[in-house]
Amino acid sequence: MTTSTLQQNLRWRYAVKKFDDQKVVSENDLETILDAGNLTASSFGLQPYRFVVVKDQSLQEKLVPVSWNQNQVAEASHVIVIAIRTNLDHDYMSSYVAMMESQRDMPKGSLDPYLDMILGTVGKMDDEMIGAWATKQAYIALGSMLAEAADLRIDSCPMEGFLPDQYDQILGLADHQLRSTLVLPIGYRAEDDKHQHYKKVRKPLDEMVVRVGS
Amino acid sequence: MTTSTLQQNLRWRYAVKKFDDQKVVSENDLETILDAGNLTASSFGLQPYRFVVVKDQSLQEKLVPVSWNQNQVAEASHVIVIAIRTNLDHDYMSSYVAMMESQRDMPKGSLDPYLDMILGTVGKMDDEMIGAWATKQAYIALGSMLAEAADLRIDSCPMEGFLPDQYDQILGLADHQLRSTLVLPIGYRAEDDKHQHYKKVRKPLDEMVVRVGS
Repeated sequence: MTTSTLQQNLRWRYAVKKFDDQKVVSENDLETILDAGNLTASSFGLQPYRFVVVKDQSLQEKLVPVSWNQNQVAEASHVIVIAIRTNLDHDYMSSYVAMMESQRDMPKGSLDPYLDMILGTVGKMDDEMIGAWATKQAYIALGSMLAEAADLRIDSCPMEGFLPDQYDQILGLADHQLRSTLVLPIGYRAEDDKHQHYKKVRKPLDEMVVRVGS
Repeated sequence: MTTSTLQQNLRWRYAVKKFDDQKVVSENDLETILDAGNLTASSFGLQPYRFVVVKDQSLQEKLVPVSWNQNQVAEASHVIVIAIRTNLDHDYMSSYVAMMESQRDMPKGSLDPYLDMILGTVGKMDDEMIGAWATKQAYIALGSMLAEAADLRIDSCPMEGFLPDQYDQILGLADHQLRSTLVLPIGYRAEDDKHQHYKKVRKPLDEMVVRVGS
């Protein structure tokens, strides 16, 4: 099988256990990774999340004990927190559709049928359902950013293991109407991170795939 | 800002409304997209999903009415269904860890502490929790496959809008201990799909990003 460059870079990627705390991701690369997050597909295009970038040694150290003591959040160049919006109400949805009309130079109101469809589905969810819906969208964004980071040969370590309430408090996320959902430290692997030498473990592709039909 | 190739390809991507039903994705490109799914990060590395590839005109047509009548599933070259496993029990977890030991040439039992950690967290979830956990992992895989497809300039249309029970029945997924979770038709955009000309709508990046710290 011919391999693509991205595929090779996804194979190069691993969950870094120790970052080189002297190396810093450039502002341009950081923006590229964030932009990959912003370009992610989301349900109805509603982008129910934001990306919180933490670049502050003292704050990053405060995050360690609320991240199952995973020291990567302190050593990483930047910590990206994918946070879902807590204000996903009808106002949010109608202003989003108004933005679509504006960006596409469409007359105001032309996307009313689309807005009605959104309000008739996502708009009818209760708080718990909408939180679960938004969270799933955040995971797609994680997939995009992991791919973009790998493609730039920037290391990362995606994390679900942290205390969201503590993150929200330390980072002041309630003020932004956000709730932390996923954590993605980025940077460069330390030379002595022995995990980089471990064989990547995956089920063989033919066990992962089920072919149906002809 | 300098842009990366992947970033340009993510910008090129859109949710295809009409595929060219004469164009077929090559087996090599299909495998590359599936491999990107297989290389996805997942919680504890457990890969709680499989990828169901549907390539059968009559089956694909049966999927249309259970996909909110979205005709893309019939016109696409292939339909990839990301399906979560329904057998995520202690046996699955211990055989996964045994596979890790085997792929890394480690003595049997060396990863027992890792297995204990898995059994103490994911292993303690009830059916509903573990389904939600596995579903979130499937969304990361969607992000990876969307990125890889775009990077190969293959079109796609990610879908949450379908009836999972009907999909499971039509595709016989219960026999594989699978439950359909996300649908990803892939192929090539039809020349007359006017959506390809619409401006991509996204919130400006500076509105999406919150900077915390210095």
